[in-house]
Amino acid sequence: MAVFQGTLDQHNGITVESVSNACNDIQDFAVKLEASLLQWEKERLRGVWFNVDISQIEWIPILSQKGFNIHHAKDNKVSLYLWLPKLESCKIPPYAHNMVGAGALVINDNNQILVVHERYRTVSFWKLPGGYVDPGEEIGEAAQREVLEETGIKTEFLSLLSVRHLPSAVFGCSDLYFVVRLKPLSYEITKQDDEVEDCQWMDINTFLSHPQVIDHVRNFVKQAILNEKEGIAMIRNKSEHPLTKKPQYIFTVHRVKDD
Amino acid sequence: MAVFQGTLDQHNGITVESVSNACNDIQDFAVKLEASLLQWEKERLRGVWFNVDISQIEWIPILSQKGFNIHHAKDNKVSLYLWLPKLESCKIPPYAHNMVGAGALVINDNNQILVVHERYRTVSFWKLPGGYVDPGEEIGEAAQREVLEETGIKTEFLSLLSVRHLPSAVFGCSDLYFVVRLKPLSYEITKQDDEVEDCQWMDINTFLSHPQVIDHVRNFVKQAILNEKEGIAMIRNKSEHPLTKKPQYIFTVHRVKDD
Repeated sequence: MAVFQGTLDQHNGITVESVSNACNDIQDFAVKLEASLLQWEKERLRGVWFNVDISQIEWIPILSQKGFNIHHAKDNKVSLYLWLPKLESCKIPPYAHNMVGAGALVINDNNQILVVHERYRTVSFWKLPGGYVDPGEEIGEAAQREVLEETGIKTEFLSLLSVRHLPSAVFGCSDLYFVVRLKPLSYEITKQDDEVEDCQWMDINTFLSHPQVIDHVRNFVKQAILNEKEGIAMIRNKSEHPLTKKPQYIFTVHRVKDD
Repeated sequence: MAVFQGTLDQHNGITVESVSNACNDIQDFAVKLEASLLQWEKERLRGVWFNVDISQIEWIPILSQKGFNIHHAKDNKVSLYLWLPKLESCKIPPYAHNMVGAGALVINDNNQILVVHERYRTVSFWKLPGGYVDPGEEIGEAAQREVLEETGIKTEFLSLLSVRHLPSAVFGCSDLYFVVRLKPLSYEITKQDDEVEDCQWMDINTFLSHPQVIDHVRNFVKQAILNEKEGIAMIRNKSEHPLTKKPQYIFTVHRVKDD
């Protein structure tokens, strides 16, 4: 009896891609699934994954009847899993439920801060440029990209200033917002019209007393001034993850100058 | 002509729950969808959302034909969206793609550090207790919960020590790992057998030279000792988000003692 072809992983699990396992019809799918599950139980596999393409969505009710649950979906594919070991609790972590954004604190040599006014907001404020971190992107790089996109200003990374965590935010996810300090390498603003209503270099003292600034954003700027005076900062170090060998970035607090 | 009933949001979008909009059959669904989209375009709505329950999964191919894309899936529901404004780029952010974990650095009055050995790992190391942050949970609370679950030790939050960011990790997501310092409030270890192979209070110097410790974990401990000496730490402040009124936690660097 034919079984589905999948990829084994380091946790002794298997992942089946629907697009490379096309079936004649839904009966064919059901029979092959039955045979595959028997085989995988015999082989003592642990997590079984099906990545079902939107064009083969009729597989899902049958997988559901067999005890599969939806884990997540992206790129028009739904990922379902089944935990096979009967004597061991399921070790598959839930999918990501955290949105991560980066905001940029960019101060120039004239003691001016780079601020933007977003379009399409019911409440209007002067904000730090920034946005969501893209998949695969490092946090500081995301801040630099957003500053360049929104304002045309080129920057270099200095330090991490602050982290804000909202445990309950959009899509039922948490929201993490990293404020990084960037050094401007250019001064001429080229505003992005699609998302940004207005953009300017604003005198820091004006910003600190401006009525259209949210308190915690104002506090980030005060904090940056204080940390500068105290000579402390959160520094980023790039290294390699010892097991996956992929890049890792570690942020730690340091004294950056002596008293 | 009947249209689907949904909930309007602050961005002028609408969300339709499949379970509260059951249709007689799939033809009925297709006709009602056609009428609803015409109506919503007339009303100048922006983002249209369908949360489709796994029991009504046959709606998805029809939604896909109408231009809907899968945004995310959880709790056995698939969320699809369609951006209606033709003259404005889609402003719907992609779903969360960041896993967030918390590790705990717990040092007792005898200069011993709380360490665990996990089960079911191909490579075996002494690690800090910790795990993924639950939905709706604050990072420090997650670390305290994991320490209690894995070791039975009660703790209180002291400070955030470090953040590690892996842009490319499991499920094609990024991984953020927050190391927090916790003060132990109890000393008797009660090991959780399901996930933890072994657990102990280990002398810090033993830990710092132990061959079964990953370098960056060792460095977190060195960093904690250094920051303690320097009198600097990342402090957590709880406040309220000015717009949503939900709790927000802001972590910033401070001098916690004078020289």
